[in-house]
Amino acid sequence: MSKPKVLIFDVNETLLDLTPLKISVGKALGGREDLLPLWFSTMLHYSLVETLSGNYHSFGEIGTAALKMVAETQGIELEYQDAKVAVVTPLRSLPPHHDVAVGLKMLSEAGFRIVSLTNSSAEAAETQLRNAGLTDLFEKRFSNESVKKYKPHPDTYRMVIDDLSVRPEEVLMIAAHAWDLAGAKNVGLQTAFIARPGTALYPNVAKPDYVVNDLPELVKRLRETD
Amino acid sequence: MSKPKVLIFDVNETLLDLTPLKISVGKALGGREDLLPLWFSTMLHYSLVETLSGNYHSFGEIGTAALKMVAETQGIELEYQDAKVAVVTPLRSLPPHHDVAVGLKMLSEAGFRIVSLTNSSAEAAETQLRNAGLTDLFEKRFSNESVKKYKPHPDTYRMVIDDLSVRPEEVLMIAAHAWDLAGAKNVGLQTAFIARPGTALYPNVAKPDYVVNDLPELVKRLRETD
Repeated sequence: MSKPKVLIFDVNETLLDLTPLKISVGKALGGREDLLPLWFSTMLHYSLVETLSGNYHSFGEIGTAALKMVAETQGIELEYQDAKVAVVTPLRSLPPHHDVAVGLKMLSEAGFRIVSLTNSSAEAAETQLRNAGLTDLFEKRFSNESVKKYKPHPDTYRMVIDDLSVRPEEVLMIAAHAWDLAGAKNVGLQTAFIARPGTALYPNVAKPDYVVNDLPELVKRLRETD
Repeated sequence: MSKPKVLIFDVNETLLDLTPLKISVGKALGGREDLLPLWFSTMLHYSLVETLSGNYHSFGEIGTAALKMVAETQGIELEYQDAKVAVVTPLRSLPPHHDVAVGLKMLSEAGFRIVSLTNSSAEAAETQLRNAGLTDLFEKRFSNESVKKYKPHPDTYRMVIDDLSVRPEEVLMIAAHAWDLAGAKNVGLQTAFIARPGTALYPNVAKPDYVVNDLPELVKRLRETD
């Protein structure tokens, strides 16, 4: 495995800290912050249900619908508009994890091309990265909205490598989600898992090429490569 | 909408009661029965991650991996073998919901052709239906294993309608899961939602053609049709 030339970063949870969302969603669910993982998992599941059923709604719309469903199955009353505010408002202004700005600068100085690829809509993603002060650290920012399919559908990754005119093996996909890396590996990319709190690897697929705790550790590992 | 000729039943949760699984999975997670929905959602999400990433493991294997992940993200120690026993053993001997045997007999007597379609492997599904005493109530039993893709991938439903040589609009898909019905509707089937405890409709797609609380209510609604 040779050193990659292009780094694709996932955004939500990988670069941005979901804690404000946890608080907001928990509040909408009557204080049940413990239900955040179920809500997030339901949102991810239904993003793929839509992808496989010929539907397309934005990630915010799917997240709102998922929150309504979690509330209903838990016997919690929640209006659609309140669910929408609980999801969409904090999602657009998540803070970056503490290692992100410094890590991205180190990677940029080391000569890597850096782009982002998220399941957030293009407009939401621009807002997210601007609010987190990260916009200028990316050569280009991609959203699954361009292909109307959600990661890990192969078309989402292929859109990026086609747009940048690079070969899959020259590219490293970086995410805090095992499902994202399973999809990237499927189209031939190298993969790196950032172990954010509360995340886990998926035991049924091969381990990612890099498994690190934060971006400076990834920088160090990439320096040792090749 | 005319009266359907063929009824396709989903199995897990739609016909079979997941309560023993809830107890078993909760026990493996140190008494956390509240984590069953997160485990089930994670299993469903990763079944589609595999489908979209060129992988295929059985539903039991995906369920075991999902249970390992939930344990890890919750800081609970759980060995693979213990996770497997907690998932696979009860999954194979779930009892039917109280209305199922009587409801299926009523539908059969009313002249409908009745088949099943599940994400459980063919061998697991045969065991499940035999242990529940339901095998003989189905003309034919289908598993997604034949196409190595999980519902709601269109190929799973098309496999059934092709095998039975029927037109999509002559077929009613019956499930307790909104995602299953979204996939069935996408290939042109009629849809019926059985509202089992703890299930919810998905607000982003059209309401199923029938929404009922149990099978006798579905029988009544079908009698009123056409």
